[in-house]
Amino acid sequence: MKREIYDEDHEAFRASVREFLERSVIPDVEDYAESKAIPREFWLEAGKQGFLGLEIPEEYGGVGAQDYRFNAVIGEELSKVNAALGSCWGIHADITAPYIVALGSEEQKQRWLPRVAAGELLLAIGMTEPSGGSDLAALRTTAVRDGDEWVINGSKTFITNGYSADIVLTAVRTSPEKGARGITLFAIEATKEGFSRGRKLDKVGQDESDTAELFFENVRVTDEEIVGELDGGFIHMMQKLPQERLGCAVSNVAHAKQILMETLEYAKERKAFGQAVGQFQHNKFLLAELVTQIEVAEAYIDKCVVAHAAGELSPVDAAKAKWWSSQAQNEVLDHCVQLHGGYGFMNEYRVARAWRDARVSKIWAGSNEIMKELIGRELGL
Amino acid sequence: MKREIYDEDHEAFRASVREFLERSVIPDVEDYAESKAIPREFWLEAGKQGFLGLEIPEEYGGVGAQDYRFNAVIGEELSKVNAALGSCWGIHADITAPYIVALGSEEQKQRWLPRVAAGELLLAIGMTEPSGGSDLAALRTTAVRDGDEWVINGSKTFITNGYSADIVLTAVRTSPEKGARGITLFAIEATKEGFSRGRKLDKVGQDESDTAELFFENVRVTDEEIVGELDGGFIHMMQKLPQERLGCAVSNVAHAKQILMETLEYAKERKAFGQAVGQFQHNKFLLAELVTQIEVAEAYIDKCVVAHAAGELSPVDAAKAKWWSSQAQNEVLDHCVQLHGGYGFMNEYRVARAWRDARVSKIWAGSNEIMKELIGRELGL
Amino acid sequence: MKREIYDEDHEAFRASVREFLERSVIPDVEDYAESKAIPREFWLEAGKQGFLGLEIPEEYGGVGAQDYRFNAVIGEELSKVNAALGSCWGIHADITAPYIVALGSEEQKQRWLPRVAAGELLLAIGMTEPSGGSDLAALRTTAVRDGDEWVINGSKTFITNGYSADIVLTAVRTSPEKGARGITLFAIEATKEGFSRGRKLDKVGQDESDTAELFFENVRVTDEEIVGELDGGFIHMMQKLPQERLGCAVSNVAHAKQILMETLEYAKERKAFGQAVGQFQHNKFLLAELVTQIEVAEAYIDKCVVAHAAGELSPVDAAKAKWWSSQAQNEVLDHCVQLHGGYGFMNEYRVARAWRDARVSKIWAGSNEIMKELIGRELGL
Amino acid sequence: MKREIYDEDHEAFRASVREFLERSVIPDVEDYAESKAIPREFWLEAGKQGFLGLEIPEEYGGVGAQDYRFNAVIGEELSKVNAALGSCWGIHADITAPYIVALGSEEQKQRWLPRVAAGELLLAIGMTEPSGGSDLAALRTTAVRDGDEWVINGSKTFITNGYSADIVLTAVRTSPEKGARGITLFAIEATKEGFSRGRKLDKVGQDESDTAELFFENVRVTDEEIVGELDGGFIHMMQKLPQERLGCAVSNVAHAKQILMETLEYAKERKAFGQAVGQFQHNKFLLAELVTQIEVAEAYIDKCVVAHAAGELSPVDAAKAKWWSSQAQNEVLDHCVQLHGGYGFMNEYRVARAWRDARVSKIWAGSNEIMKELIGRELGL
Repeated sequence: MKREIYDEDHEAFRASVREFLERSVIPDVEDYAESKAIPREFWLEAGKQGFLGLEIPEEYGGVGAQDYRFNAVIGEELSKVNAALGSCWGIHADITAPYIVALGSEEQKQRWLPRVAAGELLLAIGMTEPSGGSDLAALRTTAVRDGDEWVINGSKTFITNGYSADIVLTAVRTSPEKGARGITLFAIEATKEGFSRGRKLDKVGQDESDTAELFFENVRVTDEEIVGELDGGFIHMMQKLPQERLGCAVSNVAHAKQILMETLEYAKERKAFGQAVGQFQHNKFLLAELVTQIEVAEAYIDKCVVAHAAGELSPVDAAKAKWWSSQAQNEVLDHCVQLHGGYGFMNEYRVARAWRDARVSKIWAGSNEIMKELIGRELGL
Repeated sequence: MKREIYDEDHEAFRASVREFLERSVIPDVEDYAESKAIPREFWLEAGKQGFLGLEIPEEYGGVGAQDYRFNAVIGEELSKVNAALGSCWGIHADITAPYIVALGSEEQKQRWLPRVAAGELLLAIGMTEPSGGSDLAALRTTAVRDGDEWVINGSKTFITNGYSADIVLTAVRTSPEKGARGITLFAIEATKEGFSRGRKLDKVGQDESDTAELFFENVRVTDEEIVGELDGGFIHMMQKLPQERLGCAVSNVAHAKQILMETLEYAKERKAFGQAVGQFQHNKFLLAELVTQIEVAEAYIDKCVVAHAAGELSPVDAAKAKWWSSQAQNEVLDHCVQLHGGYGFMNEYRVARAWRDARVSKIWAGSNEIMKELIGRELGL
Repeated sequence: MKREIYDEDHEAFRASVREFLERSVIPDVEDYAESKAIPREFWLEAGKQGFLGLEIPEEYGGVGAQDYRFNAVIGEELSKVNAALGSCWGIHADITAPYIVALGSEEQKQRWLPRVAAGELLLAIGMTEPSGGSDLAALRTTAVRDGDEWVINGSKTFITNGYSADIVLTAVRTSPEKGARGITLFAIEATKEGFSRGRKLDKVGQDESDTAELFFENVRVTDEEIVGELDGGFIHMMQKLPQERLGCAVSNVAHAKQILMETLEYAKERKAFGQAVGQFQHNKFLLAELVTQIEVAEAYIDKCVVAHAAGELSPVDAAKAKWWSSQAQNEVLDHCVQLHGGYGFMNEYRVARAWRDARVSKIWAGSNEIMKELIGRELGL
Repeated sequence: MKREIYDEDHEAFRASVREFLERSVIPDVEDYAESKAIPREFWLEAGKQGFLGLEIPEEYGGVGAQDYRFNAVIGEELSKVNAALGSCWGIHADITAPYIVALGSEEQKQRWLPRVAAGELLLAIGMTEPSGGSDLAALRTTAVRDGDEWVINGSKTFITNGYSADIVLTAVRTSPEKGARGITLFAIEATKEGFSRGRKLDKVGQDESDTAELFFENVRVTDEEIVGELDGGFIHMMQKLPQERLGCAVSNVAHAKQILMETLEYAKERKAFGQAVGQFQHNKFLLAELVTQIEVAEAYIDKCVVAHAAGELSPVDAAKAKWWSSQAQNEVLDHCVQLHGGYGFMNEYRVARAWRDARVSKIWAGSNEIMKELIGRELGL
C-alpha cells in the first residue's frame, strides 16, 4: 500500500534531502565511522540547506516548518544512510533545539538559534548520569547558588554529540529536596571553565556518532543560561518526550526498512546450492514476514506522525511507537544478518553495521522497559 | 490515538448494530453455542435491519452501501460478541453475496438477492475439499455435461454455514485437463436431489457456527446455476480474495481487542497475594505489550480498510493483513487466558471460548503459510 | 540419542503399562471424553496391575517401588494416550497418596492405603479456592474446633478427580491468625454430611477428567482425619511440591512428543500441491525445530527424574522443569495443529484435543508465573 | 542441579586450565582484542600445559586423552574468558588436529603433530569460499595435476586463525566432474610460494581472532600434503562434523552462561529507582527464564558430550546441539545487554562484546538453516 501521509511538498523536500546526502555525505560516510565523528562540514552544509532549522522560526534563522512530517522525512532519509546520522541530527535539531524555541528567553533565542540553524552551534542534551540511568529523581549533578551565579558539579554520560557539542542542555538539580521537581535545565556552553569531556565512548554501534561522558567541575553559569523555569526541568522534559520518542520510532523503522530492502536484493542475487538464497522457502517465508512486520510498524508510526503533526500525540502513544519500532527494527535486522550468512558478520557489509547500530534503540530515549511501565500506568495498572 | 477511519455515519451505524446485538442476540447467544447453530431468527432480524445487504444494490433489496467501512463496522461488532457471529455473517454477506452481485446474471440476482438480503436465503461457499485443502488445482468435485444439464459429484468440507445454508456457491471442476483454470462456480440450492450434508462438525471452537461436510451425488443443475464464467471460477475467486482476507483481519483484531479489554478489567479487579493481578509488574508490562500489539495491528488493518474502500487494496496486502492479524489475535488471547489463571481454562469464561474460537484464524481463508507464499512471490522470490 | 535413564526393568514395566492401556483403556477412551469421566473400572484395573501403588509400601498393599522412574514411566505412557489420564492418575497416585504414606498415622495408612492401591478409594487434593488461586495465605476454608470435632466450612475449585473422589485431602485454615502457617490437611471422606460437589466443570480441554467445585458446609471431622501436623499443612505441601511439578513436567513432554511424532507421520502422508506437506521447506525446518525442542526439554526432564529418584531434586529445579516443559508443550502443539490445516481444528483429530488439553499445563500446579517468582527468589532477586 | 558428567579428574583438569588462564591470559586479554590477534605466546604456553594435544597420541607429543570431556572442559573455560579464545583453540586443537591424527600418514604425523601439540605450528581449516558458502559441491578452489605435483588455485574466506596459521588444511577440488565427491584435503604450509593472505577481516565480534581471506595462486604441493584419501575430502569432513558442531555447542552454552551469571550479579548491584534492577519483577522473571533456558540447553549439550565421549553422537544430534545452543546463546545475551542498560552498548563492558561475539555462532560451522535441513532430512522429510 502506498503511504498516505506525505504529499507532494514532503516528497519534493525528501528529494532535496536525498540530493544533499548523495552529494555531500555518502561519498565520505566511511570516514565518519573511522574518525568516530560527524564532521562539522556536515552540519554547516545541512544548515545551509535548511535541514537544521525546521523547528526554528524564520525570525531566528530557521525554516519554521510547523509540520512534523518534514522532520520525519529528514529522520527517515538520514537513517537510511546510517542510524547515527539520524540520531545525531535528531539530538541537535529535533530534540534539543525545540527546548530553546519553546522555553528560551528572547535573548537566548537571538543568541543561539540562528547559529543552531546554521550548524555553527552544535547541540547536545545531558540527562543521563553514570549512577542513575533514566531515574530523574536520582539526578546528582547539582547547581548551587553563589551570589548571582550557579556553580555546577557533576557528570553526564552517553551524551550523543557530546564530544563535539557547543552547547549542552543539561538537567541539573537545583532543589535537592524536591526530587524530580527540583531540576532545572541549563544551556551550558562548552567553552565554560570547568567543563570537560571524557574520551569518545567506544560503542557497540553507531560508530559515526561522538558519544561522550561530560564533566562539570565548578562550572559557573548565571540565570541567563537557564532554559525555561527554575525547578521546571522535569515538566519541560515531559512535554518534549513525545517528539523524542516519535523521532526515534521514525528512524527505527526507516533504518530497518532500508536494510531489509537491501537484504531482499541480496537474497535474490546471492546463490547457494544452485538457487537464489531468497528462493528457499524458509527464507522466502521469512522475508514475507519481515516485510509485513516493517509495513505494519510503519503504518502505526505514520499514524503517530500524523497525530503529532496535529499536536495530538500523547506521550504514552509515543512510548508505544518507540518500543514497538525498536523491537521490530532489532528483530528484522537480526534476520537480515542471518540472510547474509558469513558476510553478515563482516563490518564492511552495511547489514552488519546496521545490526550493531540498532541495538541501542531498545535502550535509549527511555528503555523499552520504561516505555512499558508508562503504558501500564496509563492502563490504570 | 483515535481511530480516524470512521466518520459520524459509520459510528451511527455502529450504534444501530450494537443496539440490535444487545436487544436480539446477546440475551440468547449462549443458546447458539449449545445448539451449535445460529438460529434463522438472527438472519431474519439482521436482514430487517439491513445488515445483510450492504453489498447488494438497492434494486435487489439491499442497501448498496458502496463503502466497505460499513462492512467493517458490522464485522467488528459481531466479532466482539463472538468470533462465530462474525465469521458466519462474513461468509453470507461479505464473501458469498458479492459473487452473485458481481457475477450473477440478471435473473440470478432477481431470484436470489432480495431473499439473501432479507436473511431468507442463507449462503455458504464451498471451496475446500477433504483431500485437497487450499490447492484449487487438485479440486476433485466434478461437473459432467449431460444434455442440458451438469451432473455434479464430490464433496466439500469445513463449510461455514454448511448445515443451514440454502445455497452453496460451489467450486466445481468442469474441465478436468485445465487445472486451476478449469473450475466453475455453481450456486447449488440445498433442495436439490443428491445434495446432502454430514453432521455438524465438532470443532475446537466457534461452537455457534454450523460447519459441515457437504456431499454431491449426481446433483443435476443447469447453466442457470453457473455464477460467472464457465471455467472462470479461479479468476473470480482470486478477485474476491482481498475482501475475504480483509474481512477476516478486521474480525481478528476486533475480537482480540474486545477480549483484551475485558481481560484488562479482570486484571484490575482480580486480587492475588493482596494486589490486583494486573499490578504485578510482569503482568503490567505484558498488558502494555498486548495493548500495543493490538493497536499496531489495528492501525495496519484500518489502513487496509481505507484502501479497500477506495478499491485499491491488493490481494497481497490483504494477505499481510490476514496473517499478521490472526497471529496477533492468537498471541494476545493466549496471554489473556493466562492472565485469568484457572478460570481461563473454563468454558464459561469468555476468554476461554475466545481462545478456542481464534485458533482457526491462522488456518482458514488461506492458511498463514499460503499468505506468506503469496507475499514472497510478490517480492520476486 | 538414546534416553539413558531407563534400564531393562523400567522398559519391561513400560511394556506392561502399554499392554494394559491397549487392552483396557484405548478401546473405550472416546467414552471417557463423552461422559466426562474416567470410569471406576479404569481405577480398579489399574489397581490390579499395581499401577496405583508405586508410592505405597507393600505392607499397605502397594508396590513400594522406591524408584521414581517407575512413576515417570506410567506418567509418560498415560499421557501419550491423553493428557487427562496422566493428570488424573497423577493426582491420585503420584501426588495425593504420598501425603498419606509420608504423613499419615498407622491407623490412617491401614484404613486407606490398601484401597487406594486397589483403586477402590479414589483420591483428590483440595488446595485452590475460588477467591484465592495459588495464594495459600488467603485460604478461606476453615475448620473450627467444636468439642472433639472440627467443623469445616468453605469451598474448593478446579479439583481434578473432584466429582468422583472418595477422599479429598483438603487444605483448611485451622489458625486464622497464622497465615500460611495456620493450615492443616484433612482427609475428608466424600460420604461426610455437609460435603457436596458442584457440577463437573466445563473445561477447555481434558474432557475426560471430572474436575469439580467442592463445598464444605459444617462438615464435621475429628483429629483422625488430620494428615500430618496440625498447622503443618503449608510445610507438608512445600515438601511434596517437587514431585508434583516433576510429574507435570514428565507428562507435558511425553504428551507433546507423542503428538509431534503423530504429526510428523501426518506431514509425511498428507499431500498438498503435489507434495507431502512435511517436505515443504518451511514445514521441514519447523518439524526439525520442534523435534529439537522436545528432545532438549526431555533431556532436562530426564535429568530431573534421575535427581528426584536420588532424592536430590530441589523445588526450584522442579519449578524450572514445570514451566519450561509446559511452555514447550504448548508451543509444539500449536505448531502441530497448524501442520494439520483445517483438521487441526476438528475435535476428532487427536492433535486438536491435545492442543486444548495442554493449555492448562501453563496454569496449574503453580502457574508458570509462580514458578518464575520462585526461581527468581532463589537467584537472590 | 549438579552437572553429573564430569568427575574429579575433569575438575582437576579444569582447575589447571583456569590457573593457566588467570596467570597467562586474562591479564593481557585486552591486548588480544586491540591487536586483533591471539599472540603466539598463548599457543606456546597452552602447548606446554598440554592443552593443545588432547586429541594427539602421546607418541606424537600429545596427551592422547581419549575422553572428549577434557576437550569440553577446555572449550568451556576458554569461552568463559571470551568467545574467540574458544573458537580459535577449537579450530586448532579440536577440529583441525584430529584430521591429521585420524587421516594423516605416519610421515605427516611425525612431521607436524609434535609441533601442533607444542603450539609451534598453528592450524586452520579452509572450507568456505567467497562464492559458495556452505555448498561443498560448488567448491571452486582447484588442484590440477602437473607431473608429480598439484597446482592449486583459488581462495578461501572467513578462515579462523587464517592470518597466523602455519598450516591450512584446505578443501580443494581435485575432480571437477564429481561434485562433492571430488574434493581432497591438502595440508598447505603457509610458507609455500603462491600462498598469501588478505588483511584480517573486520568482524562484528570476536575481535581477538585473526580471521582472514586466503589466496592460492599456483601453489605447488605434492601427494605428501594430501590428508586422507584423494577425492575423499567430503566423507572425511562429514565424519568430523559431529565434533565440530558439538565443540561449538559446548562453547556457546559456557559463554552465555558465564555472561548471564555476571549479569545476574550486575542486576543485584545496580540500582535504579531505589531498587536493584534485578528485583523489578519483570527483570526477576526474565532472569529466571534465562537461567532456566541456559540450564536446559546445558543438560542437552552435556548429554551430547557424554554420547560423543562414547563415540555415539550422530551428526544430526550434533546439529541439534549446534543450532539450539547458538539460538539460546544469542537470545540470552541480547537480554543480558538490555539488563545492563546503556552500559550494555559500551564495548568496555564484557556483555557488549559477548553479544557481538556470539552473533556468528548462528552462522558458522554450518548455518542454523543447514542444521535444520539436515535434521529434517533425517526425519524423512
